[in-house]
Amino acid sequence: MKNIKLIIEYNGKNYRGWQKQPTENSVQEVIEEGIKKITQKEVKLNGSGRTDSGVHALGQVATFYTDANIEGYKFKNALNSILPSDIVIKESEEIDISFHARYHAKAKTYKYIIYNNNTRSAIHRDFSYHVPYELDIDKLTISANRLIGTYDFTSFTSKKNSKKNKVRTIHDIDIVIKGKLIEIRYTGNGFLYNMVRIMTGTLVDIARGKIKEDILDIIKAKDRDRAGITAAAQGLYLEKVYYKDNWKNI
Amino acid sequence: MKNIKLIIEYNGKNYRGWQKQPTENSVQEVIEEGIKKITQKEVKLNGSGRTDSGVHALGQVATFYTDANIEGYKFKNALNSILPSDIVIKESEEIDISFHARYHAKAKTYKYIIYNNNTRSAIHRDFSYHVPYELDIDKLTISANRLIGTYDFTSFTSKKNSKKNKVRTIHDIDIVIKGKLIEIRYTGNGFLYNMVRIMTGTLVDIARGKIKEDILDIIKAKDRDRAGITAAAQGLYLEKVYYKDNWKNI
Repeated sequence: MKNIKLIIEYNGKNYRGWQKQPTENSVQEVIEEGIKKITQKEVKLNGSGRTDSGVHALGQVATFYTDANIEGYKFKNALNSILPSDIVIKESEEIDISFHARYHAKAKTYKYIIYNNNTRSAIHRDFSYHVPYELDIDKLTISANRLIGTYDFTSFTSKKNSKKNKVRTIHDIDIVIKGKLIEIRYTGNGFLYNMVRIMTGTLVDIARGKIKEDILDIIKAKDRDRAGITAAAQGLYLEKVYYKDNWKNI
Repeated sequence: MKNIKLIIEYNGKNYRGWQKQPTENSVQEVIEEGIKKITQKEVKLNGSGRTDSGVHALGQVATFYTDANIEGYKFKNALNSILPSDIVIKESEEIDISFHARYHAKAKTYKYIIYNNNTRSAIHRDFSYHVPYELDIDKLTISANRLIGTYDFTSFTSKKNSKKNKVRTIHDIDIVIKGKLIEIRYTGNGFLYNMVRIMTGTLVDIARGKIKEDILDIIKAKDRDRAGITAAAQGLYLEKVYYKDNWKNI
């Protein structure tokens, strides 16, 4: 038995997210079907975590067990020749049998792309979140920096989230302006349901002057209603999953 | 009678190019239908030039005449509320009645995006040209710089091009590397049919070592067969059209 690790890029537009569902089209299911064609056996892919409907990935990580007599690195080309054009295997390799993409993940980076222009974009529409308001980038940057640290992020997750422990550590938030595109990269040890999208929506609401409260007070309130909107799914990318202790060393 | 100028962004994926055709879906026709809904009259849009099937635009320019009692700047929002999401009006304004988007164009900038990675991209697939080979960026840059100037570009246009005068001036070629994306911007006083795509294909063939000839010798040969492949339509963007004498002053 071998454990095969995949690094996966996908365009989330035509999928109801990563996770397999009984009646919906999911990225996980499409890749499992592809592996089945190659190995002639049912497999179960274990991803590093779910992504929502419409969310993209540049570096989702998943593993599966197989007894097929195929070298690990060969799954990349074999799968890419079968998969639809909106899913790509960037790497495949055999990895220690005990490796688990979710349990062993130490940190993740999510990228969020905002298209900040008075008109919507015909080119970037499925890959960014359109914000037509003027944004104060200084305010955005200062508030983003305040989110770095270890906090109870109850204010920044869906009210539907029933997980008890809502303490997470954000290692870094990096903002890059590329013309009309604003790229925000969030790196942390874990993210709650909708957390990146709510942090982004709140930063946008602060940068456009709609929210005047200090973002640290919003954290302290532990109240979802004090934070801003949930920014759109199509601006969000799971960029990288880290498996060593220090995300900076990888 | 008023002359209205539009600046248009479009995703070319679902269109058979800019130019209206009897049985095919074109960007021009979709916008003309939109204007008709607003003004209640047939109109004809005059674009700065055609773009091929699948080619995108960030700054196509087109004009139309109307006697509708609507201020020029209002067409932007009125059209954007009607047009499909893959076409956007970025600006609209009334302009001198004699202005013509094609005849008065002094220069154009085309952007070409190459995705240079061993695997294809799920995210950039409709917006870039996938080149899986290793590229020598120094060779690419040196050869691109040699194309700047006034030459007979017969080697860099489709054999189907029956235009007599194939002399054009390239003012500038600018190359920017953004991770796995290579952006090449070509600015010139005019471009022959397929010229940007053949120049790009030739630069790629030189940078991957497939063509060893000096690009100036390819120009001198005036022979399409000496140049490289025609790079894919989906990597090409009409970025800007200039209407003053010196493109650098605009």
